[in-house]
Amino acid sequence: MARRSETLHLGAFLYPGGHHVAAWRHPASQADAGTNAAHYRQLARAAEAAKFDLLFLADGVSIRGDDIDALSRTAIRYVGQFEPLTLLSHLSAVTERIGLVATASTTYNEPFHVARKFASLDHLSGGRAGWNLVTSADPREAYNFGRDSHLAHARRYGRAEEFVDVVTGLWDSFEDEAFVRDAAEGRFFDPDKLHLLGHEGEHFSVRGPLNVPRPPQGHPVIVQAGSSEAGKALAARTAEIVFTAQATLADAQAFYADLKGRMARHGRAPDELKIMPGAFPVVGRTETEAQDKYGQLQDLIHPVVGRSLLEQLSGADLSAYPDDAPVPDLPETNGGKSRQDLLLRLARREGLTIRDLYLRIAGARGHWTLVGTPVQIADALEESFEAYGADGFNIMPPTLPGGLEDFTSLVIPELQRRGLFRTAYAGSTLREHLGLARPPHRKPAQSGRVAAE
Amino acid sequence: MARRSETLHLGAFLYPGGHHVAAWRHPASQADAGTNAAHYRQLARAAEAAKFDLLFLADGVSIRGDDIDALSRTAIRYVGQFEPLTLLSHLSAVTERIGLVATASTTYNEPFHVARKFASLDHLSGGRAGWNLVTSADPREAYNFGRDSHLAHARRYGRAEEFVDVVTGLWDSFEDEAFVRDAAEGRFFDPDKLHLLGHEGEHFSVRGPLNVPRPPQGHPVIVQAGSSEAGKALAARTAEIVFTAQATLADAQAFYADLKGRMARHGRAPDELKIMPGAFPVVGRTETEAQDKYGQLQDLIHPVVGRSLLEQLSGADLSAYPDDAPVPDLPETNGGKSRQDLLLRLARREGLTIRDLYLRIAGARGHWTLVGTPVQIADALEESFEAYGADGFNIMPPTLPGGLEDFTSLVIPELQRRGLFRTAYAGSTLREHLGLARPPHRKPAQSGRVAAE
Repeated sequence: MARRSETLHLGAFLYPGGHHVAAWRHPASQADAGTNAAHYRQLARAAEAAKFDLLFLADGVSIRGDDIDALSRTAIRYVGQFEPLTLLSHLSAVTERIGLVATASTTYNEPFHVARKFASLDHLSGGRAGWNLVTSADPREAYNFGRDSHLAHARRYGRAEEFVDVVTGLWDSFEDEAFVRDAAEGRFFDPDKLHLLGHEGEHFSVRGPLNVPRPPQGHPVIVQAGSSEAGKALAARTAEIVFTAQATLADAQAFYADLKGRMARHGRAPDELKIMPGAFPVVGRTETEAQDKYGQLQDLIHPVVGRSLLEQLSGADLSAYPDDAPVPDLPETNGGKSRQDLLLRLARREGLTIRDLYLRIAGARGHWTLVGTPVQIADALEESFEAYGADGFNIMPPTLPGGLEDFTSLVIPELQRRGLFRTAYAGSTLREHLGLARPPHRKPAQSGRVAAE
Repeated sequence: MARRSETLHLGAFLYPGGHHVAAWRHPASQADAGTNAAHYRQLARAAEAAKFDLLFLADGVSIRGDDIDALSRTAIRYVGQFEPLTLLSHLSAVTERIGLVATASTTYNEPFHVARKFASLDHLSGGRAGWNLVTSADPREAYNFGRDSHLAHARRYGRAEEFVDVVTGLWDSFEDEAFVRDAAEGRFFDPDKLHLLGHEGEHFSVRGPLNVPRPPQGHPVIVQAGSSEAGKALAARTAEIVFTAQATLADAQAFYADLKGRMARHGRAPDELKIMPGAFPVVGRTETEAQDKYGQLQDLIHPVVGRSLLEQLSGADLSAYPDDAPVPDLPETNGGKSRQDLLLRLARREGLTIRDLYLRIAGARGHWTLVGTPVQIADALEESFEAYGADGFNIMPPTLPGGLEDFTSLVIPELQRRGLFRTAYAGSTLREHLGLARPPHRKPAQSGRVAAE
């Protein structure tokens, strides 16, 4: 197969202590990572030194789960950690090139606030901001925002479709050259280059303008992770990065072809969207060392935590089934559909028991688990990239900082030797790292000027 | 009069380019300040080197005004600048001791988000966060959040009273020593030290818990600025700093005595709240130099800008009155009442025309204007402090960075010589700078544990 002309993209997906559910118990992780600013500054600088495209932070606006025994044994279910936008704004002061992607939900936010905060981060960082748009799949979040129940899946996506249009419209409130700052004339900005949004929709009514100059990137990069039908439809129209869980090459290729194939109907070229599946690498200098590392982490999984994580990811109550029972059929829920399908397919394909499945997913939570030497891991990433299963990968280190150090010191040099990954940043914005064009300014449909009341 | 036993507190109130409405046109200001991160990093470091208690950032979730000609001639009416929480999170990475106070409205935010972001900033900064609670006095903000009109004054304050209780309750979700991180036992936090809020009120229903460990300060410092009856009632019960506009010593003393006198009924001692009026200092090495500096700035005020600012602050339509007419009676509005009263009293007392009044307020927007030598300015600050007109001052430099440099290099050394201001930080948190106790954890009224659904 001919080598692809571009190189691959890498995200450093930071999670408190690492992505393995028991990471916080392991000596290679920082147990108090969730609110340790110095730890995050060190990770951000290390990821930038390794030339990652971006840092990636997930988010949840509630603790994820109700089983207090299981919750109190984990560090990664949003039990106690920095809010992502404040953390990335902090990290923007100690980095210069790496992209900064934070998650924010369209279900429990206002588009004006989201547009403003990401525009602000884009200015603070000199054009390195990205917004990971999620629709909030966890019903517990509703209770923190005055609702008894979560919006249904379809309605969440309806709101998200409108939300993203309002946000991008607000980013275009000012034209790029609006701020003339002409001291002699006493003119700070050109009034002809300020536009009302005047949005009136089913979910939102937002007049605008946004009170932030147009972001350095035009629009911060839009990232999405939903892999359901509604999620893919939204991504095909609006996303510039899709983060996804794909456990096999065949699944990854099918997802890649499906999503890229949907873009033409929105007038978009396939390379305007980068597909970056998660990859959970356990790196050893030998295969045995890698397997031993993985085994060490797996041995730290408390059974209460494993079962609870499986119930959370599947959305199903499994309390009637013992650990050694085969995974039963799962009822349809209002949660994230794509993850549930993935788990079921995996269990069926390999004939897994409940214990097998929770041990399998506890590490990477359904993401692609790679246990091996730097050459083996680089082979797997290269194969998926060259076979159009991915445009890059969101790297989910099992422990932090240990797992990130392993990947940057052992795997990235191997990818660079193969010409698959940059050895220096060519640009200064996240869009430039990704090879994405800067969106031109579009005037809102509404009137051209801010009107008097 | 005996010297007060404590020393005074100083805030550095940062505004894009400076507080004078025409500052951006002056060579001592940074015209592109609003989105210039390096400029803010320099200001933050300079204020910390001068031992200010805190940085203070105002906020608005809309452009303030509809007169596009006037708006386009100003830098300070939220026309285009960083969002405060992202900016302070950025600045927390380049400072170590100075407090960080950002404004957030209770009218267009959710208490869960506000609690979470300020808790996050408190952790990022090692206990330096403060929340300036405002209720949004500008009707244009409603249009960015799906409302046709603003909440009435009384209802805004009802919402604020409930909002602040939800936020402080959420900060107490975890007890201080909840995160035990016992790797051997596999216990990350002590489940008995996590509490649901279970708030059900008129405006909000918030289950909690907040998914952030208890902030280093227990609660970030609560700051308020409303000086209406409802504002004073809220402040007497909940505020720890009150920022206020007081143009004369007699007004300041009356406000001080009134507000401190209201605290006992809430079981609070007077020194649990620090009153810090704004002070707009134009510093010259001689009085003539100071007057010349002020005159230079005043000469840069465009008439369109002056009139428009007066209309915005007074909430009144003055288009029927020429510049040289006496200030007419102003109809009552739904905006900020306290500022309107202040302007009217000033105009009556001194028999001002509309032009006189807009020139007078354009600089400090109704705040205390001090034009003079370092000794004269220190005298005035000392007099107000010793006469219980203030516990400190929120310094509003006319230009930035120039006006801050003048104050730190000329006035602060004079205050230090008099023993009125610190020469080194004694503590490391904002509470410690202010001499405020760390609030003990209170269990929410609701059940002691997070229950299963």
